[in-house]
Parts: sequence; structure tokens; C-alpha cells
Amino acid sequence: LQSKLPDVGVSIFTQMTLLAQETGAINLAQGFPDYDPPRELLEALARHALTPGHHQYAPMPGLPRLREAIAAQVARLHADAPAPDPATEITITAGATEALYAVLSAVVRPGDEVLVFEPAYDLYGPAIRLQGGVPRYVRLPAPHFRPDWDAVRRVVSPRTRLVLVNTPHNPSGAVFTADDWHELARLLDGTDALVLSDEVYEHLVFDGTPRMSARQHPALRERSFVLSSFGKSYHATGWKVGYCIAPPALTTEVRRVHQFLTFAVSTPTQHALADALQGDASDAHARGLAGFYQQKRDEFRALLAGAGWDLLPVPGGYFQLARYEALSPASDLAFAQFLARDKGVAVVPVSAFYHDGFDDGLIRFCFAKESATLQAAAARLRQ
Amino acid sequence: LQSKLPDVGVSIFTQMTLLAQETGAINLAQGFPDYDPPRELLEALARHALTPGHHQYAPMPGLPRLREAIAAQVARLHADAPAPDPATEITITAGATEALYAVLSAVVRPGDEVLVFEPAYDLYGPAIRLQGGVPRYVRLPAPHFRPDWDAVRRVVSPRTRLVLVNTPHNPSGAVFTADDWHELARLLDGTDALVLSDEVYEHLVFDGTPRMSARQHPALRERSFVLSSFGKSYHATGWKVGYCIAPPALTTEVRRVHQFLTFAVSTPTQHALADALQGDASDAHARGLAGFYQQKRDEFRALLAGAGWDLLPVPGGYFQLARYEALSPASDLAFAQFLARDKGVAVVPVSAFYHDGFDDGLIRFCFAKESATLQAAAARLRQ
Ligand SMILES: CSCCC(=O)C(=O)O
Ligand SMILES: CSCCC(=O)C(=O)O
Repeated sequence: LQSKLPDVGVSIFTQMTLLAQETGAINLAQGFPDYDPPRELLEALARHALTPGHHQYAPMPGLPRLREAIAAQVARLHADAPAPDPATEITITAGATEALYAVLSAVVRPGDEVLVFEPAYDLYGPAIRLQGGVPRYVRLPAPHFRPDWDAVRRVVSPRTRLVLVNTPHNPSGAVFTADDWHELARLLDGTDALVLSDEVYEHLVFDGTPRMSARQHPALRERSFVLSSFGKSYHATGWKVGYCIAPPALTTEVRRVHQFLTFAVSTPTQHALADALQGDASDAHARGLAGFYQQKRDEFRALLAGAGWDLLPVPGGYFQLARYEALSPASDLAFAQFLARDKGVAVVPVSAFYHDGFDDGLIRFCFAKESATLQAAAARLRQ
Repeated sequence: LQSKLPDVGVSIFTQMTLLAQETGAINLAQGFPDYDPPRELLEALARHALTPGHHQYAPMPGLPRLREAIAAQVARLHADAPAPDPATEITITAGATEALYAVLSAVVRPGDEVLVFEPAYDLYGPAIRLQGGVPRYVRLPAPHFRPDWDAVRRVVSPRTRLVLVNTPHNPSGAVFTADDWHELARLLDGTDALVLSDEVYEHLVFDGTPRMSARQHPALRERSFVLSSFGKSYHATGWKVGYCIAPPALTTEVRRVHQFLTFAVSTPTQHALADALQGDASDAHARGLAGFYQQKRDEFRALLAGAGWDLLPVPGGYFQLARYEALSPASDLAFAQFLARDKGVAVVPVSAFYHDGFDDGLIRFCFAKESATLQAAAARLRQ
């Protein structure tokens, strides 16, 4: 059997988690919290697990009550944009990962080009290639990882089918500004290119930085698939429930594929999340996430202060990037392996986020961890 | 946006479920039980929902303890075949649907042919076409829906990449015999075609009919992806956990795609299923499914006896097929709509299982229902 993805190995996240298990290193590699979802959410899942009649197929696009709760919350949080219609504009998926794959499958045809900003989450490239699409990469320069719109302009062409945006950005935390969205809108004006905006870290924006969804830009809304996930917003990466918001015509295409990819998502889990999204407490929870994670960022940075680490700015998200000397050791992967084996802290080498393995001497720490974990890791890193 | 699947509408299962809701018809259309999973399984999910540390990403191929439990059960139930290796041969997926899509994405390239027996589950054709593959259909003739191996031989060619088998078969319940597997093995001998065997109804085989998995055929095992699902085996279609068993080289390719399709499956749900699969009770449960569903089949047939319905034999699965006069009314879809609107029972027209809408005058009832439901439906159908 000739592989269709011969160059795809086990993902760096899995590799580093395995290395952490082997070496006993503290796992700051894969992006997941080491704390649990809110107690009420766990209790809601337990309650629905025991509820008769909550165990057969959910409707293909998702439970109506969950879609309605999402629509209502999005309307409250993005008061400047029209509320999405739960019936025709929201689809519940098996995590944002499935949503991303469904969008790519639904819109990318052989030969179509997809613009990808790098560093980029490792699934974008292979998932595009599996559709016969051609990823066109534009590099975001450290330390701010802001798009160079002249560079983008040189890559956009009539073959551009889709532009992939990730804001806040993994791994850098960079946030698309209103100006960035305007530049993108201007660039796509008159074309029929679409936008996939991966916003799973949407609530994790720090220091009062304004944040804006693709949905909040009137000219982009009509051509955008906006993805988010309860994994990040409820500390429940293992529940695997995400969603896609898009105008009705685009949603029709996503659902055409979603019904064949997974058909539907866990019914009791959707009920539990719908409970959690009811009312004011859920908005307070969402609004509180920025402060909660900003404090973790600040704590981690303070713990490493004065120890010789060159820490990059972190405007949002789960991750701290740090620079080391690119020439010694030989590569960021070698350095990451050294950190796991000799210092006992697992990290992700940022070269894994470049299709060509470009190594600009950066590693990524996940700070979505208990204080005790961050302290223990910092103590090892200071040695 | 030009659709990549312009001819794919909302699936017949969703359509008929909506029609049932609109008309108040009893829903014998979509295949799901109207009873709950075993109480111990619900309690296990509630327990794991409340367990700290069970809420972040499961390992990409699935929880080791769930894969080990599956391997052990498969080894006990298929004593004549080598046990699958949980580390390299089992992958947990978001239902058998995701497994099917992952296999098709992993092995079908543009221009590859995939042999599909019709009637066939409605996702096979579009999912093949989304990979650029070409479905080649071979019709199974009513009332026994057994393959005509001469017809199959005429369709298999050097371009055949994959043969899709579904045993027991949806919608007919037909079961692949040892002879069928031998014929298939002989046909594929010397080719590098692969087999996808969708065995989600594996335990639902009636009247002592011998059943055999693709894994139990030595020459096929090495080229087969075998799919199953807890949805059918535990009355939990809404939990969306399935799996794929395949030799290591094939599993590598499935996982390469699975990691991009969904990455992983709900952690608390996997823990609950792993608990349920421990030990003897789980084998007794699996062995009991045949009797449980055979009794439902018999009950439903007895309820309809003497009312003029021409009921086809049902060797396995969830479904009763019935013949009506193909010429009046105009089509099986028209007849299904009449049954929902005028008799108050929703069914699936079997033409939905043919790529060209071939109508041989059959409708499908799901008998995976409480006695009271079957009785109420039969009373309406007898009028
Ligand atoms: C799905 S494993 C990767 C988790 C993640 O988002 C990351 O580590 O970047
Ligand atoms: C995923 S909805 C269809 C359920 C089913 O297996 C059927 O009705 O055939």
C-alpha cells in the first residue's frame, strides 16, 4: 500500500507526549490543561449520562438546544454582528478538527490553492493535500507574527480558493487586528475566495487587546467559516465538541460532508454543554477566561524571569514561545529532546509548524497548567 | 460556491425522521433503538464524567485500555483468528462512520475504483467520490441479497482499489457466508486490492446462521479493514464510538488520516466503554444480542402476519424489508410518504440505497424498538 501521506508521521504533539511519558518529563508540549472542566459541567454530563432517551443519534447538524445556546451567546458577545441562525448557520462537529476537515473537504478541489500562514497547526497542510489542494505558505515573522500584507498579495491569485486564518494564533498567540481583517477583505474583494477562521482560542486574548472574529467584518462574514471549540473554552479538550458558523449556503456544503465524516456528535455531551451555555454564568465564564489565562501566562513568565530565557510576547492563547540559540544545539527538535531528557520538561519545537521544517530557533511551552506544574517545570528549567 | 456534492441532499434517514416529527408518525425509519444502553454502561459514563483527569485528549489511536479490551473480546469471540494487537491494529474512531471515511481517504486515489454492493448505505458513494474514486456497483438481488460472483468478477479490474462489504447487510440483513469470503479471496488473489468490511451489526445474526468476519479468513485478514461500533452493540448510537481493526501497515494509514479528521474520541466515553467490555459479562452481552434482536424480529413479523404484507427473510441486523406493489403507488418514496402521512408509520424507501434510485418496490422498517412501539406501529399498519 503506497501511502497518500508518506511524509506524515505521528504528530509532534503525540511524539512529545510519548517522550514525556518515557522520560518522566513534565508535559508542557501538547496543548491541553492539566485541570478539569468546571464542576457544573461534569455534573451536567453525569446527569445526562443517566437520562433516559439521551443516547441515540443527535440530529446531524447538532442538538437544536445546543445550536440555539451557541447562537445566543455569540449574539451577546459579538453585539455588532447579526446573530447566527442556529437552524441554517451552525453545525456541531467532533471538535474543531472535524470542522476544519469538513470545510476543506467541502470546498477544496484538486488544483485549488489554499493560503496558509506559517507557523501553522500541523494538520493544515496534509488535510489540504488530501483534497488535492495546494497549500501556499506565507511566513509570519517572529517575534510578533503579524501578516505582511504585501507578501500575502503576492501569493493570492485566481486559483486561491480559501484563506486559512487562526486567531489567536497557535503557536504564537498573535491576534488578527481590525486592520488585518480589512486588508484581507480588500484583497479578496471581487474574488470568490473563502475564509476559514479557526478561532478556538477566541476568549484567550490578553492585556485588553481588542479581538475580532471574521464574523464581525461585514464583507468577510459572507465568505467565512468560523470555527470554535468547547475543548479550549471549557478546559475539556477530551470531549471533542466543536462547531462551525457560516452563512447558509456555506453551511449546506459543510453539512453535506459532515454527514459522511461523522454524521453526528455525542448526544449526552451536547446536552451537557447546552446546559453550561445557558444564561449569564456562561458569559461570565467566557469573559473570565482571558483573565484566567493571562494570569497563567504572567505566572509562568515570572517564574522564568532572570534565568536567561528569551521569552517572546504572548498576546493570546495557551502558549509561551522562547528563543534559544539556533546553532547550538543543532536544531529546535534536538533542543526539545535535550529539555525533555536532561531537564525533565517536554516542549514542542516550533519547526514542526513549518511545512519545510524551517527552524528559527523557537520552542513552545503550554502554560495551561496548574500553578504547581508551572512551578515545578520552571524550577527544572532554571537549573 | 459550486458544490462538490451537488446531488447529495439531506440523507433519507434525516428526511424521514423529520417527516415522522412533522406528522407524528412512529419512527421506524432511521436505524436506532428507542431504548437505552445497559444501566451499568450509563452509570459508568456518569462515573467517568465525575472522575478528575478524564477530560483531556485521549491518545490519538484511542485509550489503551479500551483497545486492549476490544482486542481481548475479539480474541475470545473469534477464537480461530489471531488476536488483534491493540497497539498497532486497533484505532478508536468517532463512530464507524468516521472509520469508513478515514479508510476511504487513506487508500482511495483519484481514478481508483471501489466495488460497492447495492443496496448500500447512502454514504458509500459520495464518500468515495470525494476522494476522486469511482464507485463500481454490483446489485444484490432480492429477496436474499446474496452476491452473484460472476457479476462481481466482471467488475473487478486492475483499477479496483477496494471492495466494500457490509455483513450483516443494511438494509437486507444478508450475511456473508464462508463461501462468499472464499470467492472474494480467490478473486483478489494476486491483486493488491483491499477490503473494507463494515461489520457494525456483527452480533445481530439470527437462527444460528454462522457468521464470519473478514478477519477470520486467513487470506483476507492481511488486506482487510474491519469496522465495528458500540452504537449497535450497546444500544448507544448517540455515543459515536466505533473502531477499525486492520494489520499494522493498513492501521498506520488509517491513523494518518484519523489524526487529521478528528484526532481523538471522547475520553470519558471511551473509559465507560472500556469498563463495560471487561470480562465475562461483556461476552454474555454480545452473545445475547442475537437472541434479543431475533425476538424483536419475530415479534414484529408476528404482529404483521396475515395483514397482506409481503415480508422478506431477515437473517440479521435491525431491519425488516417488505415488498409492496411497485406500480401503484408510483414509487417506494411515494409509498413511504403515504405510510407516514396516512398510516402514521415512518419507514425508509429502499431506493435510497441505490445510486440511481433503482426502485424494486421495497420499504425498510427498523424493528430495534420496544414491544409497545412495535405493537402500536403494527396496529397502524394493519388498518
Ligand atoms: C490535538 S493535539 C494538539 C493540541 C494542540 O492544539 C496543540 O498542542 O497545539
Ligand atoms: C446515521 S443515521 C442512519 C442510521 C442507520 O444506520 C440506518 O438507518 O441505516
